[in-house]
Amino acid sequence: MTDRFTATYRIETPASVREAADAMAGEQSASTFVDVPGESEELQRRHGADVVDVTELGTTAEPTLPGVDPGSEEASEYTRAEVRIAYPIENVGVSVPQLRTTVAGNVFEMQPLSGIRLLDVDVPDVYGAECPTPQFGVEGTRELIGVHDRPIVGTIIKPSVGLSPDETASLVETLVEAGVDFIKDDELIADPPYSRFEDRVEAVMSVIDDHAEETGKRVMYAFNVTGSVEEMRRRHDVVAEAGGTCVMVSLNSVGLAGVLALRRHSDLAIHGHRNGWGALSRCPQLGFEYTAYQKLWRLAGVDHLHVNGIRNKFTESDESVVASARAVQRPIPGDDGILPVFSSGQWADQAHDTYAALGNVDLMYLAGGGIMGHPDGPAGGVDALKQGWEAAMAGVPLAEYAEDHEALRRSMEAFGTDE
Amino acid sequence: MTDRFTATYRIETPASVREAADAMAGEQSASTFVDVPGESEELQRRHGADVVDVTELGTTAEPTLPGVDPGSEEASEYTRAEVRIAYPIENVGVSVPQLRTTVAGNVFEMQPLSGIRLLDVDVPDVYGAECPTPQFGVEGTRELIGVHDRPIVGTIIKPSVGLSPDETASLVETLVEAGVDFIKDDELIADPPYSRFEDRVEAVMSVIDDHAEETGKRVMYAFNVTGSVEEMRRRHDVVAEAGGTCVMVSLNSVGLAGVLALRRHSDLAIHGHRNGWGALSRCPQLGFEYTAYQKLWRLAGVDHLHVNGIRNKFTESDESVVASARAVQRPIPGDDGILPVFSSGQWADQAHDTYAALGNVDLMYLAGGGIMGHPDGPAGGVDALKQGWEAAMAGVPLAEYAEDHEALRRSMEAFGTDE
Repeated sequence: MTDRFTATYRIETPASVREAADAMAGEQSASTFVDVPGESEELQRRHGADVVDVTELGTTAEPTLPGVDPGSEEASEYTRAEVRIAYPIENVGVSVPQLRTTVAGNVFEMQPLSGIRLLDVDVPDVYGAECPTPQFGVEGTRELIGVHDRPIVGTIIKPSVGLSPDETASLVETLVEAGVDFIKDDELIADPPYSRFEDRVEAVMSVIDDHAEETGKRVMYAFNVTGSVEEMRRRHDVVAEAGGTCVMVSLNSVGLAGVLALRRHSDLAIHGHRNGWGALSRCPQLGFEYTAYQKLWRLAGVDHLHVNGIRNKFTESDESVVASARAVQRPIPGDDGILPVFSSGQWADQAHDTYAALGNVDLMYLAGGGIMGHPDGPAGGVDALKQGWEAAMAGVPLAEYAEDHEALRRSMEAFGTDE
Repeated sequence: MTDRFTATYRIETPASVREAADAMAGEQSASTFVDVPGESEELQRRHGADVVDVTELGTTAEPTLPGVDPGSEEASEYTRAEVRIAYPIENVGVSVPQLRTTVAGNVFEMQPLSGIRLLDVDVPDVYGAECPTPQFGVEGTRELIGVHDRPIVGTIIKPSVGLSPDETASLVETLVEAGVDFIKDDELIADPPYSRFEDRVEAVMSVIDDHAEETGKRVMYAFNVTGSVEEMRRRHDVVAEAGGTCVMVSLNSVGLAGVLALRRHSDLAIHGHRNGWGALSRCPQLGFEYTAYQKLWRLAGVDHLHVNGIRNKFTESDESVVASARAVQRPIPGDDGILPVFSSGQWADQAHDTYAALGNVDLMYLAGGGIMGHPDGPAGGVDALKQGWEAAMAGVPLAEYAEDHEALRRSMEAFGTDE
């Protein structure tokens, strides 16, 4: 194992960029308190991380983050730079949790840094070979649903909280009849007292089974299994035994070991929800770029990953959403790209821009209000979404396509089209 | 289960604070896309979260974080406020991962918020009764080590990376002979090819066993088990079978489900390392205050939690370190306070300030360079640390105590005492 893995950061420092990057490489590899007689040089050679690339990005007058080296607090400028550090695989072996510790551990608190964001991580092929990696990915998910050559169109159960299993099933009935391909639990619901997991699965799968018998189409429902490992595995089994095809997990709530344990046990597609991601990403000079973060979850075996949506109702910019979705589709060791999940404020309106940004339809496109709020009801909402994507894929402007597509036309009247 | 749990946030918003807080409470409970006929009022009454407290903290001219509601981007001021939201336990049941989803999920990306930091979480007693909670805590750890009435004095194996099991054991021999109570693996090492976990445990425990036979004192070694659940449990068993008393885990690298799975299996003290914490905390208007974060890990069953140290070599302020340590010592449902772990740049120098801040000695005090770099070697370093704490506990100034305590005097000469 002489391979290396690399981590790319954007840093900000009052010191010399090179010195700061060298300090990072040292801290996260073979650093020591004092010289260890004799061993030092050999140890550095075998285990030391190296700074392999430095690109300065300009300066800023004020530090983004507090706490930089007191000796430098009076600095008149702070340099931003992109730095890439290569670590010997030998330091870690193949371990996604230890990879995270190495590239995204104490380094975030280092005193020379008034900004530090992990932009990307590149792992050698041995990670793809030995990590669980996605079991279904794009093609496997398409097979399970039976939808090819267009986005997988889906929705979310709302209200977020409070529906009984029967009320949920009744809503699912409306939605499957409306023609959705995919439905997911809200992330706020897993196994609360008012909607026990087993009861919800039984009620929902009964509706999905009936619909599959009538129409031949088995809608994918992502049941939220988020919990302890024992709970997740037991709930996975409940879904599998009921004929379900997908489980959802809140990645940041269970962590990498939780997802690894679920994946090692799983026969179903794993839908990765990233709630809590904002805490890791909203300060532009701190935390993670999704390009880096999503790789860890793919190595752990997630098949679908949320990326927000263009013109979403949250705080993320379209540029960031597009970069995230492209990253999720890009091959890494272990998979050839998985499904980005677009959601939040989505309707037909964003189909053209989304298609233009990706150049393909290997994605999940989830709408809530865009389906439930359609003037002709959910069936109109689903039709409008599909028509929006037909227009995008045909290269026909939305307004033109709407001329002879009623559902689309009605949704444009209802939701406006000032974009 | 009619109890509620509460979450306290510091927010920043261009909108009215009350409206923003109400939006947060809605988003994280019974929010919906459109009115659900009939159900709405009853559902809101049973499941809606409520804003129970709002304290305005003043205004700022610029938004801290990007992405606030485009309609408000021209706002001339952004109000900061502390808001407390109460959620029905019924929404979640007893689940630490789902608790996290609820209090620290999508709320971080809400458009009215140009700042959002989770300051605290309060759970009802049922969480203490049903969650794993710490198995050893303060008294259990003290019993295992045989140290009472003073801080547990410890150190870290360095170099961080590269020592073979035999080299590690040889360093451990030096350290136990020097008189430490506790030693931990570096977080960068778990089971790398150059120091296989089983081999390291065997080599280290042989030294610790010999020392225990000779002196009656069993030094606690925190072996880093960070990895998948299967790996962590297997490694735990290796440590337990070898007579070890503690395992260490990188909390952010394995996540809550990982720690829960380890705890449910564990017979040993769990030492919680928080590397990666900087990404969640360094922007003052984003992420988490440790007061909130550490509670999740205690409910999951961690016995020791890192808090950095006064005048540490990282970016955290002393004020923050002290607040974290106090929070870790404060009772919550399920435990009466656990051990804060002070480390990073620590030597006798910080004993007085640490003792003054906490008013007790229920803590772990780890020094690396402060022990290894002592002019008379590690034994001098350990003696100096203990003498520093004797002085603090006796209320005698360090310099005065050093007059007739050689090791302390020598460390002050070596490390300076300009504080």
